[in-house]
Amino acid sequence: MSLSSKHLLGLCGMSKYDIQLILDTATTFREVLERPIKKVPTLQGKTIVNLFFESSTRTRISFELAERRLSADVVNFSVAGSSVAKGETLKDTARNIEAMKIDMVVIRHLSPGSAHFLSRVVNANIINAGDGTHEHPTQALLDMYTIREKFGTIQGLHVCIVGDISHSRVALSNIYGLQTMGAKVSVCGPKTLIPKNIEKLGVKVYSKIDEAIKDVDILNVLRIQLERQDCTFFPSLREYHNYFGITKERIEKSNKKITIMHPGPINRDVEISADVADSSDSVILQQVLNGVAVRMAVLYLLGTMN
Amino acid sequence: MSLSSKHLLGLCGMSKYDIQLILDTATTFREVLERPIKKVPTLQGKTIVNLFFESSTRTRISFELAERRLSADVVNFSVAGSSVAKGETLKDTARNIEAMKIDMVVIRHLSPGSAHFLSRVVNANIINAGDGTHEHPTQALLDMYTIREKFGTIQGLHVCIVGDISHSRVALSNIYGLQTMGAKVSVCGPKTLIPKNIEKLGVKVYSKIDEAIKDVDILNVLRIQLERQDCTFFPSLREYHNYFGITKERIEKSNKKITIMHPGPINRDVEISADVADSSDSVILQQVLNGVAVRMAVLYLLGTMN
Amino acid sequence: MSLSSKHLLGLCGMSKYDIQLILDTATTFREVLERPIKKVPTLQGKTIVNLFFESSTRTRISFELAERRLSADVVNFSVAGSSVAKGETLKDTARNIEAMKIDMVVIRHLSPGSAHFLSRVVNANIINAGDGTHEHPTQALLDMYTIREKFGTIQGLHVCIVGDISHSRVALSNIYGLQTMGAKVSVCGPKTLIPKNIEKLGVKVYSKIDEAIKDVDILNVLRIQLERQDCTFFPSLREYHNYFGITKERIEKSNKKITIMHPGPINRDVEISADVADSSDSVILQQVLNGVAVRMAVLYLLGTMN
Repeated sequence: MSLSSKHLLGLCGMSKYDIQLILDTATTFREVLERPIKKVPTLQGKTIVNLFFESSTRTRISFELAERRLSADVVNFSVAGSSVAKGETLKDTARNIEAMKIDMVVIRHLSPGSAHFLSRVVNANIINAGDGTHEHPTQALLDMYTIREKFGTIQGLHVCIVGDISHSRVALSNIYGLQTMGAKVSVCGPKTLIPKNIEKLGVKVYSKIDEAIKDVDILNVLRIQLERQDCTFFPSLREYHNYFGITKERIEKSNKKITIMHPGPINRDVEISADVADSSDSVILQQVLNGVAVRMAVLYLLGTMN
Repeated sequence: MSLSSKHLLGLCGMSKYDIQLILDTATTFREVLERPIKKVPTLQGKTIVNLFFESSTRTRISFELAERRLSADVVNFSVAGSSVAKGETLKDTARNIEAMKIDMVVIRHLSPGSAHFLSRVVNANIINAGDGTHEHPTQALLDMYTIREKFGTIQGLHVCIVGDISHSRVALSNIYGLQTMGAKVSVCGPKTLIPKNIEKLGVKVYSKIDEAIKDVDILNVLRIQLERQDCTFFPSLREYHNYFGITKERIEKSNKKITIMHPGPINRDVEISADVADSSDSVILQQVLNGVAVRMAVLYLLGTMN
Repeated sequence: MSLSSKHLLGLCGMSKYDIQLILDTATTFREVLERPIKKVPTLQGKTIVNLFFESSTRTRISFELAERRLSADVVNFSVAGSSVAKGETLKDTARNIEAMKIDMVVIRHLSPGSAHFLSRVVNANIINAGDGTHEHPTQALLDMYTIREKFGTIQGLHVCIVGDISHSRVALSNIYGLQTMGAKVSVCGPKTLIPKNIEKLGVKVYSKIDEAIKDVDILNVLRIQLERQDCTFFPSLREYHNYFGITKERIEKSNKKITIMHPGPINRDVEISADVADSSDSVILQQVLNGVAVRMAVLYLLGTMN
C-alpha cells in the first residue's frame, strides 16, 4: 500500500484511494499521540528541511513536531537572513538543498505552483505547506480526518466554507478533497471574496449565512486575514461580523447541531464569536491535534517509499 | 520525593523543601555536566516548546541545552513571524500548543502573570522563564545554588541586590527564595529604582553602596537595562557608575571578601568594573554553568511527575 | 593521525599534512552521504553551537547537516534578538557559552580575527565559518576536495579566482590552501577589486579574463556581492558582465576544457552566465555536496581530539 506520487503537492486530482490511505495511516499515529512516549523510529537518519518563505507558527510547529516524533533530523530555514534576500532564485535554492542530500522538503511559499516547481527540479520528496492562494493539502486532509473522526464518514455530508474564499488555499484544497470523498461543498461570503465561476467546480454559493446554516452539517470558518489585505474587500470588521460572523444566536436559530471548524488562528468575535469557538460543537482543537497525526502519516508514507 | 506543584511559576510561596529538592537534584546534574558525554535519557520522547515572546540569548540557550541534555525533543518558538503578530491571544496560542500534545512549555513573556495564566488553561507543565517585571524563578534558583556551592549553606548569609530593583524579576525571585532559605536580603540603588514599601518584605534598603559593602557577604549586581528604559531614572551612566558601580577600590576599602554575582549580560564598567567581574571573588561564570544544571533539575522533576 | 591544532581558524600556515588529512577523512564521509541512512554516531552527546553574527543560508545549513549527521546536539544562535544587541562583548558571549560546557563553536562574524580571538578565550574547539574579509577555511577545503575529486590531484593545476578579490575571504583561504597543495593560483577582476601587492603572495594578476581563460585549468568565480557594496567599484553590472562575466562564448573561444567553480549563491548572468553554471564542466553542485562531507571531516577530527 503506497501513494501514487512521491510528493504531496495538492488535493486536485488526488485519488480517493490515496486520501483514504493517508487518513487510515493517520489513525495509527493518532494513537501514538496518546501514548506517554509519542515517538517512533520510522524516519531515523532521514533529513527534512522546513523551507518557509512565509511566516507561520502553527503549521511549522505542527510539521516540526510530526518530523521529530518520527525521529527525523530537522533543519529549519526561514526567509529572514536567507539567500533569497540575496536574490537567489528558488531553483538555485532548491538545487543546493538537493545537493546536500536532503530527503524531504516541506515548503511554504508565496507563489502558487512553487511546490510543483520544486518537485520538477529536485529528487527529494516535496510536501506543499501552502503555495500562495493555491493549495494547502495537509490542512484539508486534517479537516477531512476530523470530519471522519466525528461523523464516521465524509460521504454525503454537506460542508460550507465561510469567509474569504478567493484568497484561501485552505478553501481550494478542501473543495477538491471533500468532493473526491463524496461530500457536498458550498461556500458563503461577501461577493467580493467569492471567485467568479466557482459554481463550475460544483460548489454552491450562499450569499446569506443563515441560509447556509439551515442546509449544512459543518461550517468551516476561514480566518479573515486582516494582515494580508492590501485593499478593502468589505466596509468594516463590524459589518463583516454582522453579515457573516458565526454566532451562538445564528446557530441556535437553526435548531440543529452544526459542527464548527476553523483552521486557526482565530479572530475571536470577527469571523466567529468566542462562545461558538469554545462550544462543544467546535472541533477546532481536535483539528490541531489531528494535524500532527495527518502530517506524520504523510511524512511516513512519502519518506518510506524510496 | 517530588515537588508540590507541577509547574514552576515563581518562588513566592515555594516551600523550603521544594527549593532544597531542586538544588539537591541540580547537584546530580552538575556532575553530569563534568562528564565527556553530558547527556542522560531521562526525558526521551517528551516534547518541550520554548515559547519566547521576548528576545533572550542566554536564558533560551541555557534552557535548550538543559532540554537536549535530558534527551527531550525541542521546538523553538519566538515572537517574530508568529501568530501573535496576527493578533492571536495568548490563550489561543496556549490551547493550540496544548492540542499538539506538548509535554512542557518554557515561557518568557512581557506580561506579569502570563505563566500563571498559561498554567490555568493548559495541562502541560509550565516553567516561567521570566514574566515581565514579576518573577524569573530559575535565575534565583541558580543564584542560590551558586551561593550554596560556595558557602555550603544559604542560611544566615547576607545578600545585597544592587541596581534597578523596581524593574527586576531577578530581584523579586531572589528576595522570595533567599528569605525562605534563611538568608538576609537587602537592596541598594537609586531611590527612583527602589520600590516603595519594599521594607515590608523584610528587605533592608541601602542608599549608599559603601555601607552595603560593609555589611554583606554577597553582592548580586543587576544589569542596568539600557535598552529597556523609556524614561531616565538617573542622570547618566557615568553618574550611576560613580554612585553605585562595583569597583575594585570600593571592595578593597571594605577590607573583606565579598562574593560577586551578576545575572548577565554585563555592562562592563557601568554597574560593575571589568576587574571585579573577572576577579577570583566573582562567581559569574559559575552561575552560567549552574544555570544549565538547575534547569535540568527543574525539567527533570516536573517532567517525570506525570 | 590528528590535526596539529584543536581549532580550524584559517588555511594560512596550515600544513599540507593537515589539509590532506581533512580531505582524506572527507572521502569517508562522502561515502556516508551516499547511504540511505546518512548518519553516524561519532559526536553523540557533544554539543555544538552555531554562532552566526552574519546572516547565511547555505553555510549554516551545511554545517548544521554535518553536525546532525554526526549525531551531535545542535544549538543555533543568530544575531537577531541576541545579547549582542544588548551591547555584550564577543568576549563575554564567548565565556558564557564556554561556561555552559559547549564542546564546539562554529562562528561567523563580521570582524576579521574574531575566530582567532575566540580560540584564545575559550576551551571549546573553534571553527571559523567566515570572519569578515579574512578567511573562510571550510569553503576553501571543499573547493580543494572538489578539485581533487575531479582531477585526482591538486598539485600542478592552475586555478584562477575571478571577481572581487579584495573583499573575499573565499579568495584568501583558497590562495593559502591551493598554494600549500602545490597549485598555481592567479586572480582576475577589476583593478579596484584586486588587493595591491597581491603578487607578493605569489599570485599572478590577470586584467583580462580571456587571457586568464587561455592559461588555466579551473575558474573559481566569486559572487559579486551586490548587497554588501557600500560604494561602487565598477560602473554597472552590465559592464562587469561584459568585461569579466564567464560566458559560453568566452570558454568556447579558448578551445579547451575549463572546470567551473562558484561558492554560491550565484547571480545568474552577472558574474556567470546561466548556461555555464549549468554546464557539464560546472562542479558547483558537487561543491555543495562536498561541503557537507568536508565539514563532517573537520568536526569529526576536531571533536574527537580531546
